[in-house]
Amino acid sequence: MRKNQAIRSGEAVVGFVPTMGYLHQGHASLMQAARQQSDIVVLSIFVNPIQFGPNEDFDSYPRDEERDVETARTEGVDIVFIPSVQEMYPQPTQTTIAVSGITERLCGASRPGHFNGVTTVVSKLFNIVQPQKAFFGMKDAQQVAVIQQMVHDLNMPIDIVPCPIVREEDGLALSSRNVYLSTELREEALVLSQALRAAQEAVDSGTAVTADDIRRLLREHIGTAAHAVIDYAEIQAFPSLEPLAGDEPLQAYEDLLIALAVKFGKTRLIDNIRIQKMEVPSLV
Amino acid sequence: MRKNQAIRSGEAVVGFVPTMGYLHQGHASLMQAARQQSDIVVLSIFVNPIQFGPNEDFDSYPRDEERDVETARTEGVDIVFIPSVQEMYPQPTQTTIAVSGITERLCGASRPGHFNGVTTVVSKLFNIVQPQKAFFGMKDAQQVAVIQQMVHDLNMPIDIVPCPIVREEDGLALSSRNVYLSTELREEALVLSQALRAAQEAVDSGTAVTADDIRRLLREHIGTAAHAVIDYAEIQAFPSLEPLAGDEPLQAYEDLLIALAVKFGKTRLIDNIRIQKMEVPSLV
Repeated sequence: MRKNQAIRSGEAVVGFVPTMGYLHQGHASLMQAARQQSDIVVLSIFVNPIQFGPNEDFDSYPRDEERDVETARTEGVDIVFIPSVQEMYPQPTQTTIAVSGITERLCGASRPGHFNGVTTVVSKLFNIVQPQKAFFGMKDAQQVAVIQQMVHDLNMPIDIVPCPIVREEDGLALSSRNVYLSTELREEALVLSQALRAAQEAVDSGTAVTADDIRRLLREHIGTAAHAVIDYAEIQAFPSLEPLAGDEPLQAYEDLLIALAVKFGKTRLIDNIRIQKMEVPSLV
Repeated sequence: MRKNQAIRSGEAVVGFVPTMGYLHQGHASLMQAARQQSDIVVLSIFVNPIQFGPNEDFDSYPRDEERDVETARTEGVDIVFIPSVQEMYPQPTQTTIAVSGITERLCGASRPGHFNGVTTVVSKLFNIVQPQKAFFGMKDAQQVAVIQQMVHDLNMPIDIVPCPIVREEDGLALSSRNVYLSTELREEALVLSQALRAAQEAVDSGTAVTADDIRRLLREHIGTAAHAVIDYAEIQAFPSLEPLAGDEPLQAYEDLLIALAVKFGKTRLIDNIRIQKMEVPSLV
C-alpha cells in the first residue's frame, strides 16, 4: 500500500482538483489525472460568488451536490471539500490577489474583476488543502495562464498541471453551462469547435497565414450560426496572451492559443485550441 | 533532542522572522521569541524594493550582512535566508496582494503602495519558508494588523505572533533608521515616546478624555521639538484601525492604538502604544 505508507511517513503527495461542481467528464479527466499522479486526491466544489459579476449567473449556476459526490466516489477521490459561502467568506474579504497583464484581455476584458475572484479563491483553497499538485482544465486556458503566473510570482510550492479539453463526440467542449442550451442552440454551438478546427488547419497548412486571416476565418465560421454573438475570437501567444499584430505571420510563434467566447442566447460559451510548434527532426 | 526528533518525524515547528536586516535588539527579541516557540528558527534578510516609494530610502537603507549573520548566530537562529532582488523578482511581479480598508490610513495614506509591497513579499517569503509561526514587531503595528488580515482572509496556515516594541533606555523605539539621526535630532526624537506616555496617562486617568483631546496632546508634545514635522498623530481602534470621531469618549473602546509618524530632517520615524482595557474583577 504505497498510499498508506506515504501517508504514515508524511510524504503523501496531495493532488487537488478545484471545481464549481456540476461535474462532467471534463472534471472526471482531472480527477483521473490527479488519481494517477498523487497519493491523496482532494476535490473541492465551491461556486465562488466573488468571481461572478453583478449581472452574471451566480444564482442560477447549476448545482447537484449528491450526483457530484457520487462522481467523486466513482473516480476514486479521497476527500470532497464542499464549503459554504459563509465558511469561505465569514466576512467580506478585504484581501485580493490580482494578476496584471494577462488578466486584462479575453475573458478579463469582458468580465472585470473575474480573475481577481479566481486567484483569490484559488489561493484560499490552496492554503486550506495544501496540495503539492493542482489540476486545471485547459478549457479555461486563460485561467490556467493566470494561475501559473500567480504561483510563479508568489513562489507557491505547487505544481500546476493543465489537462486537455474534453469534448462531446460532435466536438462541443464539455461545460457545466451547456445545460442552459436549447436543442437548437446546442446545435448552433458546434460552430465553435468547427471554427477552431478550421483555424488550426489554416495555421498547419504552412501557407503565409497572418493573425488577421485567422480572426477573419473564425468570424466567418461563427457568423453562420443564427444566434451567435461574438464576445471575442482571438489568436495570441501562450501563455503570455500577448495580442498578435494583424499582419503578423504566425510562423514566428512556438506556442499559440486561438480562443473564443460567444453568446448563444443568454449562454456564454468559451472554447480554445492551443497550437504548439513541433520539433521537426532535422534531415541534415 | 526534542528538535532532532521533531525534524525526523516531520513535525518540527518552523518559526520565521522576516526582516530587512541591519538587526538591532528589537529583531533580537523576535528571534528569541521564535527560539522559545519553535523547533527550527528561520531569519530572512531582504530589503524589498517594491515596498519603497520612488522618493524613499531603498538605496540608502542601512545594510550590514556580516554583522547580521553574527547576530543571528548569537540568537540561535538555524537558517538565515538572504535572497537577492534578482532571486525574489527574476521578472517584475505581475501578481500583487492588496488588503483594502486598514491599509488606507496612517502609513498607508503617506506611503501609497507600501502595504501592497509588504503583503506581496511576506506572502512570497511564507511560501518559500513555509513556517507554522511568524514573528513581527509591534513597532510596525499597522503592518501587523495588515498581515493578520491577509492571513485570515487567505486562510494561510500560519500563526502571526506580534512581539512588543523594544526601546532604548531613554525611550526611543529601536529602528534600523535611527542611524540616520544626528545627535541633535536623536535627542529631539525622544518627544515621540514622551508624547505616547503622556497620552497613555491621559487615557488611563479615568477622566472623560476624547479622541481629539489625545490628538491635541500629542501635537503639543511633539511640537516642542524644533525639527519635528508631523506626518500623523492618531488614535484609533485596533486592529481595525477605524478612525475615531473627534468627540468620541475613549471609555467605549477595548483596544486602542495611538500611533505617530514624524519626520526629523529627512528621517521619518514611527512609534505607537497600544492600550487594552484590563478585565477588572467585579466586586459584587
